[in-house]
Amino acid sequence: MPDDGKPLTSLVANRLPWHSLDAAFYTDPAIFETDLDVIFGRHWIYVGVEPDVPEPGDCMVVDIGRNSILIVRDDDEGVRAFHNVCRHRGAKLVQEPKTSVGNIVCPYHQWTYGVDGTLRFAEHMAADFDRSCHGLKPIHLKSVAGLLFICLSDNPPDDIDDMAAALTPYLAPHDLPNAKVVKQIDLIELGNWKLTMENNRECYHCASSHPELTVSLFEYGFGFDPNSGTEARRELAARYQALVGQCHIDWEKNGLPSREIDHLDDRPTGYRTERLPLDGTGESQTLNTARASTKLLGNLTDAKLGGLSMWTQPNSWHHFMADHIVTFSVIPLEPERTLLRTKWLVHKDAVEGVDYNINNITAVWEATNKQDGDLVAMAQAGARTSGYEPGPYSPFTEGLVEKFSAWYISRLKAHQEP
Amino acid sequence: MPDDGKPLTSLVANRLPWHSLDAAFYTDPAIFETDLDVIFGRHWIYVGVEPDVPEPGDCMVVDIGRNSILIVRDDDEGVRAFHNVCRHRGAKLVQEPKTSVGNIVCPYHQWTYGVDGTLRFAEHMAADFDRSCHGLKPIHLKSVAGLLFICLSDNPPDDIDDMAAALTPYLAPHDLPNAKVVKQIDLIELGNWKLTMENNRECYHCASSHPELTVSLFEYGFGFDPNSGTEARRELAARYQALVGQCHIDWEKNGLPSREIDHLDDRPTGYRTERLPLDGTGESQTLNTARASTKLLGNLTDAKLGGLSMWTQPNSWHHFMADHIVTFSVIPLEPERTLLRTKWLVHKDAVEGVDYNINNITAVWEATNKQDGDLVAMAQAGARTSGYEPGPYSPFTEGLVEKFSAWYISRLKAHQEP
Amino acid sequence: MPDDGKPLTSLVANRLPWHSLDAAFYTDPAIFETDLDVIFGRHWIYVGVEPDVPEPGDCMVVDIGRNSILIVRDDDEGVRAFHNVCRHRGAKLVQEPKTSVGNIVCPYHQWTYGVDGTLRFAEHMAADFDRSCHGLKPIHLKSVAGLLFICLSDNPPDDIDDMAAALTPYLAPHDLPNAKVVKQIDLIELGNWKLTMENNRECYHCASSHPELTVSLFEYGFGFDPNSGTEARRELAARYQALVGQCHIDWEKNGLPSREIDHLDDRPTGYRTERLPLDGTGESQTLNTARASTKLLGNLTDAKLGGLSMWTQPNSWHHFMADHIVTFSVIPLEPERTLLRTKWLVHKDAVEGVDYNINNITAVWEATNKQDGDLVAMAQAGARTSGYEPGPYSPFTEGLVEKFSAWYISRLKAHQEP
Repeated sequence: MPDDGKPLTSLVANRLPWHSLDAAFYTDPAIFETDLDVIFGRHWIYVGVEPDVPEPGDCMVVDIGRNSILIVRDDDEGVRAFHNVCRHRGAKLVQEPKTSVGNIVCPYHQWTYGVDGTLRFAEHMAADFDRSCHGLKPIHLKSVAGLLFICLSDNPPDDIDDMAAALTPYLAPHDLPNAKVVKQIDLIELGNWKLTMENNRECYHCASSHPELTVSLFEYGFGFDPNSGTEARRELAARYQALVGQCHIDWEKNGLPSREIDHLDDRPTGYRTERLPLDGTGESQTLNTARASTKLLGNLTDAKLGGLSMWTQPNSWHHFMADHIVTFSVIPLEPERTLLRTKWLVHKDAVEGVDYNINNITAVWEATNKQDGDLVAMAQAGARTSGYEPGPYSPFTEGLVEKFSAWYISRLKAHQEP
Repeated sequence: MPDDGKPLTSLVANRLPWHSLDAAFYTDPAIFETDLDVIFGRHWIYVGVEPDVPEPGDCMVVDIGRNSILIVRDDDEGVRAFHNVCRHRGAKLVQEPKTSVGNIVCPYHQWTYGVDGTLRFAEHMAADFDRSCHGLKPIHLKSVAGLLFICLSDNPPDDIDDMAAALTPYLAPHDLPNAKVVKQIDLIELGNWKLTMENNRECYHCASSHPELTVSLFEYGFGFDPNSGTEARRELAARYQALVGQCHIDWEKNGLPSREIDHLDDRPTGYRTERLPLDGTGESQTLNTARASTKLLGNLTDAKLGGLSMWTQPNSWHHFMADHIVTFSVIPLEPERTLLRTKWLVHKDAVEGVDYNINNITAVWEATNKQDGDLVAMAQAGARTSGYEPGPYSPFTEGLVEKFSAWYISRLKAHQEP
Repeated sequence: MPDDGKPLTSLVANRLPWHSLDAAFYTDPAIFETDLDVIFGRHWIYVGVEPDVPEPGDCMVVDIGRNSILIVRDDDEGVRAFHNVCRHRGAKLVQEPKTSVGNIVCPYHQWTYGVDGTLRFAEHMAADFDRSCHGLKPIHLKSVAGLLFICLSDNPPDDIDDMAAALTPYLAPHDLPNAKVVKQIDLIELGNWKLTMENNRECYHCASSHPELTVSLFEYGFGFDPNSGTEARRELAARYQALVGQCHIDWEKNGLPSREIDHLDDRPTGYRTERLPLDGTGESQTLNTARASTKLLGNLTDAKLGGLSMWTQPNSWHHFMADHIVTFSVIPLEPERTLLRTKWLVHKDAVEGVDYNINNITAVWEATNKQDGDLVAMAQAGARTSGYEPGPYSPFTEGLVEKFSAWYISRLKAHQEP
């Protein structure tokens, strides 16, 4: 493992802005533990959507580092999160990624908890055993227009409320709580989680790597050098610039907030959003750019809404279109292994084979994720070599990568021991 | 890995009695090394039975941590143990788990040792090379009525002789040295070895997890809350209590010591035994409670002897019935991986297909081991989470778990650096 | 892991001459890192042959520890080595073990390098971006009569020139640069790299382990105890002694330097060579001792040239025969996993099925390597046990093993922190 022997404080202090991080940030097991502790243990982490647990008693298990998090829809239709571990001999309570229960029963000795976390039954215990002291341990959970964020810290950053207030008007028209998950794919990428994030934060690699995605998505939406490329490409960029200006005017006129909000690197709960026009019919991120579900989300009637893109630090991005939603969460597994979990949603009343075909919904991002996974693995393979050194970001196309790296470094600084 | 940063001395000193251990004891690689050193390196470890090496030249290899132990029946019909490594370039001598040899020949350069460990031949060595200084290194070995215990320390605990004296009258009627191993199954459990042991030391989980075992085995033989459960279960418990009292009187009258001896937590070589009645016909731990081998062990003539259960610290348990013996050894592989080795034995003259059917012999414990392996994996999965904290043992059903944990902690204390 | 807690300086200082190394040298991860740093990072390492990259643009990737090394034939027909990592975001540049390119294009963002390492193209970069500062990082490379050695240090040992001067007259007649690689096999051995090397440096194990090799190779060429073995074997040894004396006279008369040069343990770039007669027809290391390629190498006309054996510290050996060449490089993968890479070469104009049959060429060493891999795994298994202790080398047959171990220890000493 490339541990240069430099202490983390020094690596953090000496990070060169607008350059990729020191190799140790991608490979060192001790820094990985710090990431789990500081970044994933003390910030709001995106874990899934309300439609993952639509009915009372529905459970979802999300494992992050040493934590196993049980997310449950309770009987009052609220969503709660608990540590997924029995208070008796400590067995993991729920093994399946998703299930539905009346009570939560430990498979070892049948200790039985309500979906509100209270211990309801435990046989053979002493007369003075106090069940009320042995309920499940709660975890902070917040739904932002149906997107579920958890925070493992006892003192979560309170700016999640600002983010919720700012994003809800953008997200609400797509009515995520009344959508349904029609597909989830877990992809293991052979790289550090930050390489997965950095890869997401630029489209510099799109033209050469993503033939399916670039049918609908304009690479120019993520920055470009106006003097670079062929004349044909410069014309395409100009066409895109005109299109985005007109679309924003039209969409906002129709009550759809669309213009960029960017707080990716100036707060603990960093985020960014913007509604972006799509190429072709302008309807959806599909292989033919047309909507893949005829039943539009919520009360939407116009399919030509492009894609509302939304990003959060440290671990998510999302595309909300008129017909379907694609949502991505990134979960570190090991220093050089990362889980990318992708969920696709359509209106809850849409019928497969009638309103939509599942392959049309998933084709673009299933292909794109695999391509990105290969790029991440190559970046990791390079970061492991002694020949690696931080290289320069493009000022035109890698600005959001810089914002991710800068946010990450600033959060480590904020949590350093004094 | 959950290393709370607390030193082992502090974890040992602050262990809360009648509660499961701190997570680090189940997960921390450094504590695992301590377990190998202190617990498995300085105590008597159960490794197998005399019938594993019935004839002169028969060899068995048992690997424990960094040790590979070669157990050999020598030409004088004694059983010896050696380090399984050549004194020349250090190659592992015997690769197979069991084999039979004339001499022990190193596969690398043909150095040749007798079954008594002496170096007999080594080509190309200097004139002043002294073969007598290059014999195999011996390891302490003791047979207790045919059960083989080894100790890797130069100074093994001497209370093994007390244990042998106490247990031999209980075990001898089953005549283990004249039995034969008819099946051995190695099961890898995905948990720390102590979770495998704790699982063995209670039957709180039996009713819900072990349908095959509880046909013959009364869960009440391992403790219960007299005020707990339904009236039907309380009546069953009362019936069991009456049965065990009567059986002990009958068995002891017939010369079979049966009453509990318990030294699980008051000495280095902890052990416990008791003959327990079985349900149904009362003959054997089989799916129909009847003997599975018609040829009884030793000179036994009565099949209704229930099961003589015997436990040793840190790593074994055994059930001796009139018709067959089941014997279990637990060997730590990694902090979160453990080998459970189960051997089934019948009278050496019993004939398969005539006197016994192998599937009848093994059905109950093959199923039960798998169920226990699943429970151990769940317990390990929970111990790895940050939500884990030590929970309370039942005073009624988890007394032997407490004795295991207390013995373990006391042995670590006894071997701590001053 | 067997870390005795002894510091490396003490292990190095107290190494017992003419004995196998302390176990920690074969198992300890920290010493493995030292090996990568000191031995493989600051010495000349054999990585392949000029015919691996015969044409301009041909690439070969060799991974050693944390280094990925890109070896390229440039447009001027020279061979160069670079760190195989992009100077932008650090992606691994070339993924395939061998390929052929016009330019070297990074798969991530299409940064484009010439085969001379210069950065030729990078889109979207700032106006003041200096391409000349972002070329590929070079690595020292030296061809010795077609054998490629690299050194990762900025200050490679300069005695490589002495070695090249001494060896070239021995090697040149076989004209390696005009040979072609007809087969490469990568074998993973389950042992420390030093056990792979030690195994290569003696033939004490040949008679019992290598039936295919000993058809042509005399074990006596590597030392023997004149008083050992049967009379038949002593006669065979005497016949060999007479043969080698006569062959050396004949070969040197014909302009082929043949007598032993041995600098295995008296310099940083240790090496040894000698032309050895072969048994049977005396032509080649084949199953029938006859040449396996009818088209002899270079301008050779006599097939009965035995085998020119050549060894380098720390990681190679080679056999040059009249008809074919076998060349071996050893690359450490993990403390207990090693790559043995074997290449077989014939004259570049030889035609398969006409001049040679590939199976005849590879049969002996393919079998021998597997046998050695098994022995190395047994040696590693032994070194992992607590019963291991360094054992005595034979003064007759393990002299070259001692030279390897002594060289290794002396190189660690030379690079110890003051």
